[in-house]
Amino acid sequence: MSRRILLLSSSTVSGSGGYLDYAEEEIGRFLGDARRVLFVPFALADHEGYAQRVRERLGRMSYQVEGLHHASDARVALKNAEAIFIGGGNTFRLLKGLYNLDLLETVRARVEAGVPYLGSSAGSNVAAPTIRTTNDMPIVQPPSFDALGLVPFQINPHYLDADPNSTHMGETREERILQFLEENTTPVLGLREGAWVRVEGTECRLGGKSGARWFCRGQSPVELENGATLHS
Amino acid sequence: MSRRILLLSSSTVSGSGGYLDYAEEEIGRFLGDARRVLFVPFALADHEGYAQRVRERLGRMSYQVEGLHHASDARVALKNAEAIFIGGGNTFRLLKGLYNLDLLETVRARVEAGVPYLGSSAGSNVAAPTIRTTNDMPIVQPPSFDALGLVPFQINPHYLDADPNSTHMGETREERILQFLEENTTPVLGLREGAWVRVEGTECRLGGKSGARWFCRGQSPVELENGATLHS
Repeated sequence: MSRRILLLSSSTVSGSGGYLDYAEEEIGRFLGDARRVLFVPFALADHEGYAQRVRERLGRMSYQVEGLHHASDARVALKNAEAIFIGGGNTFRLLKGLYNLDLLETVRARVEAGVPYLGSSAGSNVAAPTIRTTNDMPIVQPPSFDALGLVPFQINPHYLDADPNSTHMGETREERILQFLEENTTPVLGLREGAWVRVEGTECRLGGKSGARWFCRGQSPVELENGATLHS
Repeated sequence: MSRRILLLSSSTVSGSGGYLDYAEEEIGRFLGDARRVLFVPFALADHEGYAQRVRERLGRMSYQVEGLHHASDARVALKNAEAIFIGGGNTFRLLKGLYNLDLLETVRARVEAGVPYLGSSAGSNVAAPTIRTTNDMPIVQPPSFDALGLVPFQINPHYLDADPNSTHMGETREERILQFLEENTTPVLGLREGAWVRVEGTECRLGGKSGARWFCRGQSPVELENGATLHS
């Protein structure tokens, strides 16, 4: 079956309404015929509160949402899923939750079998080979930084261009990504809020309004615009 | 012997000159009679370039700087050190470097023996019980997030107050620290650029011009000013 993946930089965009509003049309096109969505709330502490928010939001689009935290057997729930949505929050907490229940291989297998995978922010980070380009604080320690590897490049969600007027002395996002490339060879997609990556089989394209930056070791960063093809 | 520790939020402060300039007087008072400083450059990729910068800067204050990366036996070098300076950069890379050479216990023992410990940014992060409140990208994976534990609280260097005009949807620093407190019980000191922590024996005080925020689980954050006493 053809792999189908939609990775959002963020769940909201400034000036573009509430939760998932800016991406509603794209999500509807992406999920297609699926009517039930299995939601993974592990990136936030309040699983049920998070699942209720998603249930309400996707309910307005006529999807039925189940929370993975309710499943008596999470792997069985994944095997029965028509679509998988992993929401944002803290990437370390999310990945640790997936490891705790030993779910990574099952998610990978479902995506290989053609089940649509929707990720937002932390849920996009874990779709990369590792979480080594997350912006999140390492509040808990997962057994490994290795993640799902659904795409062959790293993702930096909420990518932020340097502010020339800033007086802050901490590293810019670009500096942090260049530090990653000092230690690793996997390219990094810096995905601005409002942008997304969509995989349909062997095709992988940038979507949304805000574009992205592509970072490869030893090369200058490249600006990518809506519709650009990525290596998949 | 009395423990002596100086932890800087950052190595530079906007509008206050170059590398370590804003803290020059405090560093001079802190290092006291020590004439030789052992510098740990592991947080940046270019160890020798980093050591040269520190050698030049502290040389202007008449200190002699040795780089730990030059030592044939790092533990022997630490045992002979008159003072230890761990510089900033990437906290994960720094901690992995310390674990690779099995240096954490040796550094702890030297600090207990009264050797002054100077840290900046990542070098302040690793002085805390864990690196779970670093801002850095997890570009490499250390075997553990557990760090030196020279102070009994977590440090968040480069602490940044939320910008009410920001359109960015990523978490604010406060939100990230509150997520840490959902998962951990250790208090967190959010140390603004320009502020530092100084430990002299059983006394631990906030110094510098910019103050800090103190975060405890289940309590509202508290503003701390220069001279405030911290638990040590």
